[in-house]
Amino acid sequence: MPMSDLEERVKKAKAAYIRLMSESTERKDRALQAMANALDVDRERIKAANLKDIEAAEEMLAEGKLTKSMLKRLKVDDTKIDDMIAGIMDVMKLPDPVGKTLEALELDNGLELYKVSTPIGLIGVIFESRPDVVPQIMALCLKSGNATVFKGGSEAKESNRALFNVLVGAIASVDGMPAEAFQLMETRDEVKEMLKLDDYIDLIIPRGSNEFVRYIQDNTRIPVLGHASGICHIYVDKKADPHKAVDVVLDSKVQYAAVCNAVETLLIHADVADSLLPSIAAALAEKGVEMRCDPRSKELIKSIGKYVVDASEDDWDKEYNDMIISIKVVDGIDEAISHINLHGSGHTDAIVTEDPMASRRFVSMVDSSSVMVNASTRFADGYRYGKGAEVGISTNKIHARGPVGMEGLMIYKYVLLGNGHVVRDYVGSSAKRFKHSRLEKNLEIR
Amino acid sequence: MPMSDLEERVKKAKAAYIRLMSESTERKDRALQAMANALDVDRERIKAANLKDIEAAEEMLAEGKLTKSMLKRLKVDDTKIDDMIAGIMDVMKLPDPVGKTLEALELDNGLELYKVSTPIGLIGVIFESRPDVVPQIMALCLKSGNATVFKGGSEAKESNRALFNVLVGAIASVDGMPAEAFQLMETRDEVKEMLKLDDYIDLIIPRGSNEFVRYIQDNTRIPVLGHASGICHIYVDKKADPHKAVDVVLDSKVQYAAVCNAVETLLIHADVADSLLPSIAAALAEKGVEMRCDPRSKELIKSIGKYVVDASEDDWDKEYNDMIISIKVVDGIDEAISHINLHGSGHTDAIVTEDPMASRRFVSMVDSSSVMVNASTRFADGYRYGKGAEVGISTNKIHARGPVGMEGLMIYKYVLLGNGHVVRDYVGSSAKRFKHSRLEKNLEIR
Repeated sequence: MPMSDLEERVKKAKAAYIRLMSESTERKDRALQAMANALDVDRERIKAANLKDIEAAEEMLAEGKLTKSMLKRLKVDDTKIDDMIAGIMDVMKLPDPVGKTLEALELDNGLELYKVSTPIGLIGVIFESRPDVVPQIMALCLKSGNATVFKGGSEAKESNRALFNVLVGAIASVDGMPAEAFQLMETRDEVKEMLKLDDYIDLIIPRGSNEFVRYIQDNTRIPVLGHASGICHIYVDKKADPHKAVDVVLDSKVQYAAVCNAVETLLIHADVADSLLPSIAAALAEKGVEMRCDPRSKELIKSIGKYVVDASEDDWDKEYNDMIISIKVVDGIDEAISHINLHGSGHTDAIVTEDPMASRRFVSMVDSSSVMVNASTRFADGYRYGKGAEVGISTNKIHARGPVGMEGLMIYKYVLLGNGHVVRDYVGSSAKRFKHSRLEKNLEIR
Repeated sequence: MPMSDLEERVKKAKAAYIRLMSESTERKDRALQAMANALDVDRERIKAANLKDIEAAEEMLAEGKLTKSMLKRLKVDDTKIDDMIAGIMDVMKLPDPVGKTLEALELDNGLELYKVSTPIGLIGVIFESRPDVVPQIMALCLKSGNATVFKGGSEAKESNRALFNVLVGAIASVDGMPAEAFQLMETRDEVKEMLKLDDYIDLIIPRGSNEFVRYIQDNTRIPVLGHASGICHIYVDKKADPHKAVDVVLDSKVQYAAVCNAVETLLIHADVADSLLPSIAAALAEKGVEMRCDPRSKELIKSIGKYVVDASEDDWDKEYNDMIISIKVVDGIDEAISHINLHGSGHTDAIVTEDPMASRRFVSMVDSSSVMVNASTRFADGYRYGKGAEVGISTNKIHARGPVGMEGLMIYKYVLLGNGHVVRDYVGSSAKRFKHSRLEKNLEIR
């Protein structure tokens, strides 16, 4: 079978990765600076391209093929370009993650083993609507030495192409930088083909709706870094501080309900349900939150009226992404922990308690990527966690979990420096013994 | 659909994992000691069970359905039991990897973020022949707090069952230890079913032939930690020391040819091929190694006679696992690096050179999990790398790469300790600012 254009371009990106991974910090930072400058200089070109997408999207909106929020995400104005530039400058300020000595061990005299951080390879980024994914991920991948294949949605085609061309032009302006490490795919068929290229693409980062992420997870053998759902819980313990309980539940639900780290289910200890639940529910009702209640919790707050409805069994497994919360009374912390481990998505779960034994048990036994004690679930975010830039939030159990920064784009290699050492000398009856003693040395590999 | 027996048992193991992950070091070490003691006490029972497998296997050997080396791997005698016991004691001596604070950050006053190491969850182990996989992996998983589902080959059914029962009985003898975290599957159908249980099983570790590993990788969405091939290279640079070149090539090929970290292809710089290749080839011929040569290398060593044959294009992508090596003359280090990145499997590759610039370039640009300088490829091994115990060798580009010890069974969670903190206070015009300052504190979670 002849190689497709897509496969050709993916191979080109992978070949360029070998050069990109050994580029110096100084040269990569120069390329990032050039990217930021180019976005500033080429504002009009980018906005003009975006206008074409916006016009087409407005027609689709009128026909009901697109939502208002998608249109909003699509829009690129000067403020968004300023944000893109600031984002690139933030990445520039992050330390270069490539070539760090993570461990060093003397195996024997003159035989030294180094574990050194390296980029992963070729990252596939598949995204919907938001053209700002292009500068953000390109900056992160460039700094971390990873090649990248981008595939955006057709609704943002003109914007993505303009941004991509401006940015890649800027990278190429730094003499000898392997700009072909970055490639843009444009047609819908290319997603399916891309998902099959597990010989070249080492990791896929999807950016879009839960359904979109799940489709990608279900249709590729390539590892996917992301989350398909965020069913987050708050457990209000019998030793909860009442004010903290109200504040944390309210913030976790209403501060921004449409996002993955918003709370979906409230579990409350039976001993305090009658004293605490009414005030929590009143605060939620005031913000217009619908409460789907199990029989015990409904009994306590039914007087609130129209916002209180019956929960069905399905509700315990639902991500509303909306002003809705499910509520259940539990008889103890262990029931809460079991409920969370069974129904949660391993994203973010919180406990409100003043009892250190309870918080310790919760932290130890809730198997989620972020576990909060007396703090809002909404804190689970790369920026708030101090990562400088966020690659995504992962509910995977291997590699990278929770809010993922540039460290999620890194792996390592082992480098063994010898002096003609052979294994033959370390086996058999007169075998030499390994020393395996820790070395305080760094290896320079670039 | 009613739940199968296998699914029931997998769910039971996953539920027990929640308890296992918060077990103390002291109790886990007591269970490991009990496992070691039980193997010693129940030697006769284990050997009797093994004898049944051996008798059946000898019939299969006579019928040509089994190889001699498979029979050898199947055999459990007192020496092997001693090795199993020593292996468990080695794991006992390793530091407990659970609950280590990897990073701590003060986000704001009273709002502290901890990144804490945790087990991955439920590990699926699928293996052929070797019953010693059961004690080895059970010890590693117990110490690291991971539940485990084992599926062995039918040829080792009696041995696996006896070992499993002895070991699980020992774990259960420590009061309250969740021994049901460990489960054994026995029929062939169960492999297929197991590979579908990605809702419960977090990682698969396959132990067997390349074909076996590839089958598993091709038939599951669960991440697989392993390698399907080991196509390792040695590049003899123009500045190579002649003695080291002979020693390293010879050891890498003949010290144990049947394993994944043995060398398969020798690349030699044109400038030294005529002076060095004849002595390397003579040493290989003396050990009975067949040399499959490109035209340039053949020209130089054809006088050796019967061991020297023509390489075909296929040879550059072949793992012989046998006393065969392919040989090619290259015009420079960059051709060698390109050849390795194109034809290698990212396992282990070596350079022989006295030139620090050449070794640095090779180390930086060869994209393999182990890169050796003047040392045998055979060193790529968990024991030699000082890991105490080896989970496997991985050619994955994410999570864990190269020889993997207990660290490959670990992930982390984020724990955020607040005092009623809400995100609302950190957004908008009068937003509080994050401090993001590093903390020198550890969090105890068990």
